[in-house]
Amino acid sequence: MNVNPAPAAEALEAQEQLTAPPYWSTSVSRVTDSKVFIRGYDLEDMIGELPFSAATFLLLRGRIPTPAEADLLDAVLSAVLDYSLQKSGTVAARYIASANPNMPAALAAGILGVGKNTMDPCETARFCIQAYERLESGSLPAEELAQQIVDELRSRKQRIPGLGHPVFRYVDPRAQKLKEKAVAAGAWGPRAEFFEQIHRAFTSIPGKESIVLNDVGMMGLVLVEMGFSPEETTGLAILSTLPGVIAHVAEEIKAARPIRTVPEGTAEYDQTVRNFVNDRKDSGWDAE
Amino acid sequence: MNVNPAPAAEALEAQEQLTAPPYWSTSVSRVTDSKVFIRGYDLEDMIGELPFSAATFLLLRGRIPTPAEADLLDAVLSAVLDYSLQKSGTVAARYIASANPNMPAALAAGILGVGKNTMDPCETARFCIQAYERLESGSLPAEELAQQIVDELRSRKQRIPGLGHPVFRYVDPRAQKLKEKAVAAGAWGPRAEFFEQIHRAFTSIPGKESIVLNDVGMMGLVLVEMGFSPEETTGLAILSTLPGVIAHVAEEIKAARPIRTVPEGTAEYDQTVRNFVNDRKDSGWDAE
Amino acid sequence: MNVNPAPAAEALEAQEQLTAPPYWSTSVSRVTDSKVFIRGYDLEDMIGELPFSAATFLLLRGRIPTPAEADLLDAVLSAVLDYSLQKSGTVAARYIASANPNMPAALAAGILGVGKNTMDPCETARFCIQAYERLESGSLPAEELAQQIVDELRSRKQRIPGLGHPVFRYVDPRAQKLKEKAVAAGAWGPRAEFFEQIHRAFTSIPGKESIVLNDVGMMGLVLVEMGFSPEETTGLAILSTLPGVIAHVAEEIKAARPIRTVPEGTAEYDQTVRNFVNDRKDSGWDAE
Amino acid sequence: MNVNPAPAAEALEAQEQLTAPPYWSTSVSRVTDSKVFIRGYDLEDMIGELPFSAATFLLLRGRIPTPAEADLLDAVLSAVLDYSLQKSGTVAARYIASANPNMPAALAAGILGVGKNTMDPCETARFCIQAYERLESGSLPAEELAQQIVDELRSRKQRIPGLGHPVFRYVDPRAQKLKEKAVAAGAWGPRAEFFEQIHRAFTSIPGKESIVLNDVGMMGLVLVEMGFSPEETTGLAILSTLPGVIAHVAEEIKAARPIRTVPEGTAEYDQTVRNFVNDRKDSGWDAE
Repeated sequence: MNVNPAPAAEALEAQEQLTAPPYWSTSVSRVTDSKVFIRGYDLEDMIGELPFSAATFLLLRGRIPTPAEADLLDAVLSAVLDYSLQKSGTVAARYIASANPNMPAALAAGILGVGKNTMDPCETARFCIQAYERLESGSLPAEELAQQIVDELRSRKQRIPGLGHPVFRYVDPRAQKLKEKAVAAGAWGPRAEFFEQIHRAFTSIPGKESIVLNDVGMMGLVLVEMGFSPEETTGLAILSTLPGVIAHVAEEIKAARPIRTVPEGTAEYDQTVRNFVNDRKDSGWDAE
Repeated sequence: MNVNPAPAAEALEAQEQLTAPPYWSTSVSRVTDSKVFIRGYDLEDMIGELPFSAATFLLLRGRIPTPAEADLLDAVLSAVLDYSLQKSGTVAARYIASANPNMPAALAAGILGVGKNTMDPCETARFCIQAYERLESGSLPAEELAQQIVDELRSRKQRIPGLGHPVFRYVDPRAQKLKEKAVAAGAWGPRAEFFEQIHRAFTSIPGKESIVLNDVGMMGLVLVEMGFSPEETTGLAILSTLPGVIAHVAEEIKAARPIRTVPEGTAEYDQTVRNFVNDRKDSGWDAE
Repeated sequence: MNVNPAPAAEALEAQEQLTAPPYWSTSVSRVTDSKVFIRGYDLEDMIGELPFSAATFLLLRGRIPTPAEADLLDAVLSAVLDYSLQKSGTVAARYIASANPNMPAALAAGILGVGKNTMDPCETARFCIQAYERLESGSLPAEELAQQIVDELRSRKQRIPGLGHPVFRYVDPRAQKLKEKAVAAGAWGPRAEFFEQIHRAFTSIPGKESIVLNDVGMMGLVLVEMGFSPEETTGLAILSTLPGVIAHVAEEIKAARPIRTVPEGTAEYDQTVRNFVNDRKDSGWDAE
Repeated sequence: MNVNPAPAAEALEAQEQLTAPPYWSTSVSRVTDSKVFIRGYDLEDMIGELPFSAATFLLLRGRIPTPAEADLLDAVLSAVLDYSLQKSGTVAARYIASANPNMPAALAAGILGVGKNTMDPCETARFCIQAYERLESGSLPAEELAQQIVDELRSRKQRIPGLGHPVFRYVDPRAQKLKEKAVAAGAWGPRAEFFEQIHRAFTSIPGKESIVLNDVGMMGLVLVEMGFSPEETTGLAILSTLPGVIAHVAEEIKAARPIRTVPEGTAEYDQTVRNFVNDRKDSGWDAE
């Protein structure tokens, strides 16, 4: 340690650095030499005392859930589980695993398959939140605003997220089961109810009577009522289907069939053969 | 549909295609128009009847776990939870989220931080399995082989995975809690016991007496005894810390501080300034 | 081979499979036992005859570029190169490499840092294409439509992509150099010109006179005029900065400083300590 | 600014912080308000004066290459280009793009397909470097050591990287073209030559006479002689095939065929149907 007093200017600069706001700030967790605090709780106290779903709730919402809330979140996490090889991300993960039999790489690849074209509760969550904000900030009664929203979307040819199913008509039994649990847990409220009002307005359109509110949409509504943001909803959807991807990747690594490609006969390739030497010359490149 | 019978040659070729082994094969799940089967079970029957940890066990191991096994897996999943900004993957995920506020992208980035330098129960799992294979296929008694393995690793300057902690001495209380649960669930067996024998042999070295069997190592042993492969162990470790990463990414997206870089004053840059025009010429490039 | 004729029904089904459109279709390349065809050209003919930038053009646009076009694309690829630790993706890549010293994983993580908050030529490309479509499909003269677009964006508080720089005023010399090359290569046209008209309209706003059209925006315009789609523009931007990320990751792997975290003193952690046992009980969980 | 002098203790602590080694250190590039320095060179001087391949060399090796070296690196980058749908990573990237039409996500997924089972010049590079180290540090003449290495690998049933091709016999013409360029550029040396010696020793084994040194292996040798590390070699291989992946992803996004799955008839699914209610009860779960 330098025993000489620091020159005044440097010391003042350092003083400023000490008082500048820190670059990073987090309330999620904290680590000391011997302890880990999860949202302020000592991890050592938590072991075996809080199920994984409840710990997940705590990590995201910042408080310990009631047993009913933990149960409900657990039900949401278990609602979809896996979609076999009918999910693009899962197939991609298997392709990656066949070339690079590394679990983290394959899981990461699988997760990247979540986006604009996939059924994500986040869509319904975002829609639900925004619709409710319109209801709260406006003066129209719910029934009228619901009808207006439906009309707007129809005119813009935009679809309402969370609706529809290839087979189920009028009611999606899995969505209904989830709603029952939510109501029982006291996690059903005005946002979800207004979304259902919009669904009712939609099904009053001739020809649309049987369009269901599906399980993924219901997941979105329940998570909104539980206080999760749309981004968190996407994260929870990814969490919920990760065990399935792990199972697929493990199965692929075990099958040890290296370098998967497209199966024989499933691809057509442009068969055109062109003359490189001529075309290169014609494009203006000098002869070598 | 073409009512004319297929020409003989084409029909034979098609027949061969029909009997060729399929490119893909999976037992994890199956999807029909209206149903999803998870390891042969109708998902509709499962809703609300199997907690997420038990569904995770089913997806990976292919059978429904006992309540005690589900409980144990849940405890393993809840053993670590989060490691704040002391985990490279989490910090990387936050950097990604600051530039690309997209949950799947940020989670994928975080997961890619699992590798050679991280504490992964997979290491202990693999070591445990291999050590036990040596025991089974050889003729040395456990105590002697344990000592031999310790001596081999010492001479190669290789460390034993799953051991050590910056603060805990002799016993890691979190590891011990996990072991108690495993024993109670009937998921403690000869593989884990032989690993403990190796640990004992290691701690008989002067100066190493207080080196603990840590919580991550214990997770590996428990998962091995539960029948999971090392790759599945990595997958489960990633699953267990995913809620934490989701929480960090959500926090980062909410903070909306775009384009994180290295904090002021934490980086030194090579300040050398070189003359491009001269050096380019000296390297043999023609003047323009 | 089965010498018996195929049963009629199975043969007809197989016949349908043979005539069904293939699942995959590509014109990018084709592989046989001994040859690879790149957009119809034999790769063996190409070796050493087409520089990498020209091969890149061929892969994306499907034809051999003129030497001037190849030169221009090469200039676009070389326009930015690297942005040191001031780019979130690069820092994330270094964090990943410190924990998982694996080049593919670290590069993938770095690439995921491209998104909504990053300067991407894709934004300007998309804007440029859409603005020109409005010009073509409407009846307003360019100057008027340019002003109208500027007014619309101002009223919606939306910014025009591709404009602005912390230091450069009126002209960004790097953007101008790129434009000169484009004009010389015959790759400057009505789309880029209309964007410049919009820029001029913008700079006629009092206080905005010195706002430049920057290098990333110019990259977008040039790539649009070269016929690339906005997605391809993003891909080329990623390609152009990949050597920089490789250099950073290699430097990090070589430094071998495992498990990077946030530097000492740069993070504040919520210090609240809560009583888990009490709070758990208060949340409704039974005592064990 | 605080005009009072800093208290002695705080000032001393701050002084220590100022003198502590910085957390990050890089020589790759540096950014100021108006300038970017690439390995010490002002980027503004570089525009249009250094082709992309040469800039790549500069970023990685830290010096401007000679025109011949830049040419050689460019040839290496152009040696493979694309492998159509016969590359797992490319197929994975297309799957991701079909669900999440986002270029960065799809490229990242494609890159994750580089690993243990893929042909990577990095393998040959690493092998070449290690073999040469043995030659230098030992006393055996090259011919003898080469034979010994071949014998060792044969006995361990390990293959030599960089050898073999499904069709080419004795000589891979693409590899030879690349070697000629390397020799002409003065980038052929003792490491590559010793590898060729090992190759000759291998082909002296009866039955192995026609096994070629292939193009990917030759890429590895040339990059080693150019001074790149094995990790950098992997990075350059990824760079070289990125335009191809961009082309495939762009084609996929344009085809707009959302949610790719496995093609009809290419997958077999375990058809077992099990009774969930019974099995759950038999596994020890209480009836609800």
